[in-house]
Amino acid sequence: MDFYRMIENGWTEKDSLVCVGLDPDLGKIPAHLKAAEFPIFEFNKALVDATADLVCTYKPQFAHYAAQSAESQLIMTIDYIHERYPGIPVILDAKRGDIGSTAKMYAKEVFEKFGADAVTVNPYLGGDTLEPFLERKDKGVIILCRTSNPGAGDIQDLETGGKKIYEVIAEKASNEWNGNSNVLLVVGATYPRELKTIRGIVGEMPFLVPGIGAQGGDIEAAVINGKTNSGGGMIINSSRGIMYADSGPDFAKAARQETDNLRSEINRYR
Amino acid sequence: MDFYRMIENGWTEKDSLVCVGLDPDLGKIPAHLKAAEFPIFEFNKALVDATADLVCTYKPQFAHYAAQSAESQLIMTIDYIHERYPGIPVILDAKRGDIGSTAKMYAKEVFEKFGADAVTVNPYLGGDTLEPFLERKDKGVIILCRTSNPGAGDIQDLETGGKKIYEVIAEKASNEWNGNSNVLLVVGATYPRELKTIRGIVGEMPFLVPGIGAQGGDIEAAVINGKTNSGGGMIINSSRGIMYADSGPDFAKAARQETDNLRSEINRYR
Repeated sequence: MDFYRMIENGWTEKDSLVCVGLDPDLGKIPAHLKAAEFPIFEFNKALVDATADLVCTYKPQFAHYAAQSAESQLIMTIDYIHERYPGIPVILDAKRGDIGSTAKMYAKEVFEKFGADAVTVNPYLGGDTLEPFLERKDKGVIILCRTSNPGAGDIQDLETGGKKIYEVIAEKASNEWNGNSNVLLVVGATYPRELKTIRGIVGEMPFLVPGIGAQGGDIEAAVINGKTNSGGGMIINSSRGIMYADSGPDFAKAARQETDNLRSEINRYR
Repeated sequence: MDFYRMIENGWTEKDSLVCVGLDPDLGKIPAHLKAAEFPIFEFNKALVDATADLVCTYKPQFAHYAAQSAESQLIMTIDYIHERYPGIPVILDAKRGDIGSTAKMYAKEVFEKFGADAVTVNPYLGGDTLEPFLERKDKGVIILCRTSNPGAGDIQDLETGGKKIYEVIAEKASNEWNGNSNVLLVVGATYPRELKTIRGIVGEMPFLVPGIGAQGGDIEAAVINGKTNSGGGMIINSSRGIMYADSGPDFAKAARQETDNLRSEINRYR
């Protein structure tokens, strides 16, 4: 099943736009897990088991595994999700962007070594550098468009020919890069006006929406401005708010409660 | 010693602007090395030993190690260069770009886990996402400006306020981001006109210049258009042309000859 279809199934069958970010930090993992052979994997596994019926996807952030030399626990986590919950796709948030020959290596890394179902990519280098990802019809290619951080506008808001750069990216994503119906866009919840503008450009194309919770994005504003006519089209990520809802032995239960609350709040505005 | 100083020493003491790219591909490594316990490291070590007196820096490309699960051999390679040739800095070509909290993890990965002296980064997310790198005064931060690939112009050449995006990046790099004198720019050898334009904007700021050899960049045009008034300011990378100059047991000798030829050809036009 391709990535678009898997996500749509999650939206429909679980009535959920929620993505749980799996960004483990050894310093914050509950004390009772730290002695495990694979503490990051055990932490992720507990979070996944507690939330799998409430989410449309999971999103591990590559930096957290790379900085802690925990690449093997990233593979274990993705394998576990695929084996135990085969309907749930995994987005590897790695923000890859490099010239063609190197982009091919990155596509191999992300889809073969890690076995991810989708990856985030950076469009600054141009369309040819996205091709090794785009040609994988079954995989999702999630292109940075308007990011959630405070300085996002430095480059993305520059005007060219009466449009902003992020609008140009949205147009190219829609008109040039989506021949295989596998493109999505990253649009931050912290910028609801831009969510609305981009939704107007790309029609039904799904968004990956970071920025709620610790980054301060408002759920109501994000959903109202970013949703499609059918009330879907968004994968709304929460990482820290769910993972670290409680730091004790009941962390997974607390994570489930936060996930359920988030799903309900999102659904109120769809 | 900081990265700027190390590079300048290389330019002066070895009279060399050459950077050897260490992008090993297990499929192309000479047959007699394939049985080694750490074939990628052995290949890199032989290349380094054969060329260390002829280069100003080495540049491993992260994707080649990540895709082959050879991160430990990347660490071994960087450690080896630092121990055996302490004057030669190492650039990790990883093109990182992510929001602040994640960028901090990437800075930790690149500078602490891998021990690199400099890193390539993508500016699309804005200035705040570069800060965790920029604040490391001793490290080089090499910002993508005008890349070497055929589609580089898709975004980088868009015009805004009478300037192209890559010119805006060059201005920001020079005026806003270089408070610690540790910023460099990536400018492809395949675009000599853009090299000249950017040199006019940033004065003495060093460039990392990919794109000669397999990508077709012309050395004479790149050096004439990219050099500073003093005939320096460039780190000119060659990867495949040097690494795979010969596929037999004499590969290191052939790599040395290619490196020496490249250094001489570059110096002819400085």
